[in-house]
Amino acid sequence: MRRLIASIFACLIAAPLWAAENVTTFELENGLEAVVIEDHRAPVVVHMLWYRAGAADEPPGKSGIAHFLEHLLFKATENLESGEFSEIVEANGGRDNAFTSWDYTGYFQRVAADRLELMMQMEADRMRNIRLTEEDIVTERDVILEERNQRTDSDPGALFGEQRRAAQYLNHPYGIPIIGWRHEMEELDMEDALDFYRTFYAPNNAVLVVAGDVDPAEVEELAKKHYGPLEPTPGLGQRFRPQEPPQLSERRLIYEDPRVAQPYVIRTYLAPERDPGDQEKAAALTMLAEVLGGSSATSVLGRALQVDTNRAVYSSAFYSGVNYDDTTFGLVIVPTPDYTLAEAEAELDKEVAKFLETGVDPEQLERVKTQIRASLIYAQDDVGGTARKYGAALTSGLTVEDVRAWPGLLKAVTEEDIMAAAREIFERQNAVTGWYRKPQTETETVEVSQ
Amino acid sequence: MRRLIASIFACLIAAPLWAAENVTTFELENGLEAVVIEDHRAPVVVHMLWYRAGAADEPPGKSGIAHFLEHLLFKATENLESGEFSEIVEANGGRDNAFTSWDYTGYFQRVAADRLELMMQMEADRMRNIRLTEEDIVTERDVILEERNQRTDSDPGALFGEQRRAAQYLNHPYGIPIIGWRHEMEELDMEDALDFYRTFYAPNNAVLVVAGDVDPAEVEELAKKHYGPLEPTPGLGQRFRPQEPPQLSERRLIYEDPRVAQPYVIRTYLAPERDPGDQEKAAALTMLAEVLGGSSATSVLGRALQVDTNRAVYSSAFYSGVNYDDTTFGLVIVPTPDYTLAEAEAELDKEVAKFLETGVDPEQLERVKTQIRASLIYAQDDVGGTARKYGAALTSGLTVEDVRAWPGLLKAVTEEDIMAAAREIFERQNAVTGWYRKPQTETETVEVSQ
Repeated sequence: MRRLIASIFACLIAAPLWAAENVTTFELENGLEAVVIEDHRAPVVVHMLWYRAGAADEPPGKSGIAHFLEHLLFKATENLESGEFSEIVEANGGRDNAFTSWDYTGYFQRVAADRLELMMQMEADRMRNIRLTEEDIVTERDVILEERNQRTDSDPGALFGEQRRAAQYLNHPYGIPIIGWRHEMEELDMEDALDFYRTFYAPNNAVLVVAGDVDPAEVEELAKKHYGPLEPTPGLGQRFRPQEPPQLSERRLIYEDPRVAQPYVIRTYLAPERDPGDQEKAAALTMLAEVLGGSSATSVLGRALQVDTNRAVYSSAFYSGVNYDDTTFGLVIVPTPDYTLAEAEAELDKEVAKFLETGVDPEQLERVKTQIRASLIYAQDDVGGTARKYGAALTSGLTVEDVRAWPGLLKAVTEEDIMAAAREIFERQNAVTGWYRKPQTETETVEVSQ
Repeated sequence: MRRLIASIFACLIAAPLWAAENVTTFELENGLEAVVIEDHRAPVVVHMLWYRAGAADEPPGKSGIAHFLEHLLFKATENLESGEFSEIVEANGGRDNAFTSWDYTGYFQRVAADRLELMMQMEADRMRNIRLTEEDIVTERDVILEERNQRTDSDPGALFGEQRRAAQYLNHPYGIPIIGWRHEMEELDMEDALDFYRTFYAPNNAVLVVAGDVDPAEVEELAKKHYGPLEPTPGLGQRFRPQEPPQLSERRLIYEDPRVAQPYVIRTYLAPERDPGDQEKAAALTMLAEVLGGSSATSVLGRALQVDTNRAVYSSAFYSGVNYDDTTFGLVIVPTPDYTLAEAEAELDKEVAKFLETGVDPEQLERVKTQIRASLIYAQDDVGGTARKYGAALTSGLTVEDVRAWPGLLKAVTEEDIMAAAREIFERQNAVTGWYRKPQTETETVEVSQ
């Protein structure tokens, strides 16, 4: 189960801090926004460049191009040979990588603090000067296809997730996988990559995050020197994505695969995300997820389904509010072998209904708040995590002020807020319910009765 | 039930002919393709102009723009005032209209044969010269929103259909309604309309169909005179739409609405469409739909579920192959009041399974072929229907040769072809199954058991 649990809780890894971080900001004339997080405990720096461009910004039929381009940014530029970027980082004792989500693409290096300028110089270079060959396209397309093989096509849970997302969103591109649909990935070409690059890779579409043993004034000087000369892209308007129409009926999926090791039921409801200056509902949903299914030992679902009755080997509620557009709130139950998926779903629904009747236990809420406080203090130790938190927020439509306000908003959530959020979110017509199991033999075939 | 039956059978109205029509073709130098159907039984002509542009060609987030533009083409041009087009048609004793589908937008007039030139002159004018005002946009946007109110939002069956289509297509824009999602329709503006117009309204993206009491040589002369001078749009490539990824699990929907008068179960399977030079499978699916559920009295489902056992008040199988991309094959059962939807679905599945075991009754197949022959002979009487058939085919990727070959292909379908098509099509992972009913009271709530 570690895999499942890990993926479900991934959203909580970059959890916010109760305590204030030492954060300053500046903006260059060309529109580049920057966040500096001072942390002098170790002589290292994390240098991150985030673009407000992710898989949900791709043109139709070009799924995977944001992630493909992320790979291609490690090829040649006008100043560096293919692969040289990472070699230089490594030669300087650092490490680097990149990541693509629906709302952003990010690049980062972790190096000794005195190597920051070199990182900026190289990162600014590849924002505007990549130089791709047809061979790069062919080679790297094979790499992303192999990545899809390994991470998605070989993983029934990932395939199940793709089908559920596609059913969750009737119109919004969040229904399209980040890695891309295979048949579209196979057709991605140089022009697609350069189109996406030229549209979105611009200083006025980027957020610089520098965290670690740095002086903010010095960071600004360096940023001016290296990022400052880059011309902004004119006409880059507000991000535009198709939004959801009213969802009028629950979708249900049964995904069957011989490779399934552990069957489970998962349901996601369309849910509001954190909006700038308007994060209260998202805070209540965050606390709802914690109270209902945050910890197996102490959450409502964990106690009822696992600890007290052993109906489930795992249960959870999950929510992540850092998204540009509507996100989801999820419930999952992995039943013990004595229970069918139908029974497990019924038990899950029963416990949620019971929770809606009885409400939040104030003592449990206090415990949850204490746990969150502890985890946030712990998270402060990870300067990379803090940098990532700001980068993700700023490329998902939030501001530094929103990030700062978040811990206070979480702390202020009341039992009533949580129950109001719960009553609002649990609308089955906004939901996708998925069953994940091995193919059934004839006698086990699902029977639907009214 | 008439409503439901009518909509399900709509696809069969423009059914193909066994007999050859008197059809000639020509193409203008600017790329305009033309089809002339001679029919001298009455001194009338149907003049149709079809564009290879429909709802599935809309930019993301702009749903409804193809249909909106269709409305706007009745506004002013450089030569006519708003509304004058239809007034002139009417003053000449004719009638005119237009229609939008996923694959095409079409305009037609039916007038006395000697008014053909006037129609061409006006239609050519509005292909390139519309002149829109902001007032047109505001007024006509209200009209299409009201159209959505009446045809979709006031009709639970239409809403159910929208939700099912959105679940059927994980990636392809066929999942988006032609009328548009309301929230997107509300934002459509002048620029959106003109963008779509300038992209797609061009002689090299249009098909002219003229049917009736005309001389083909004369039609070509007139077309040259009026359509010939229009400049083609350069760079209009192959149509490009996102295609479906593998569909890996059946989607199920329960749509509940207090306005539901008659509950039913409907299931659609993703199915291949008629492809140019490759229509055999579509022909087999067409015959499968007829054999399985074409006529209530004599089809496999009709006899088993209605005539012999009275389990259903209506049942049907339906398929329409005239599409640019993958279409659907559908099954529907409207149970008698004694049966729940779950039971109805099980009965439907049982009968389909039985059919897959026993195969096609050769005598029934002969009867179906005779019926189709009769309906095609009957359809020959409708010169407008014949024109529409060619226009739809040519804007859905087919050729005149494909249309001509179709009746022969239907006739040649064997029992084995039908069973092979049936075995291939009935893959539940490609299906969406919908239940349509009133909201259930507490005790009637659906129970899913394994």
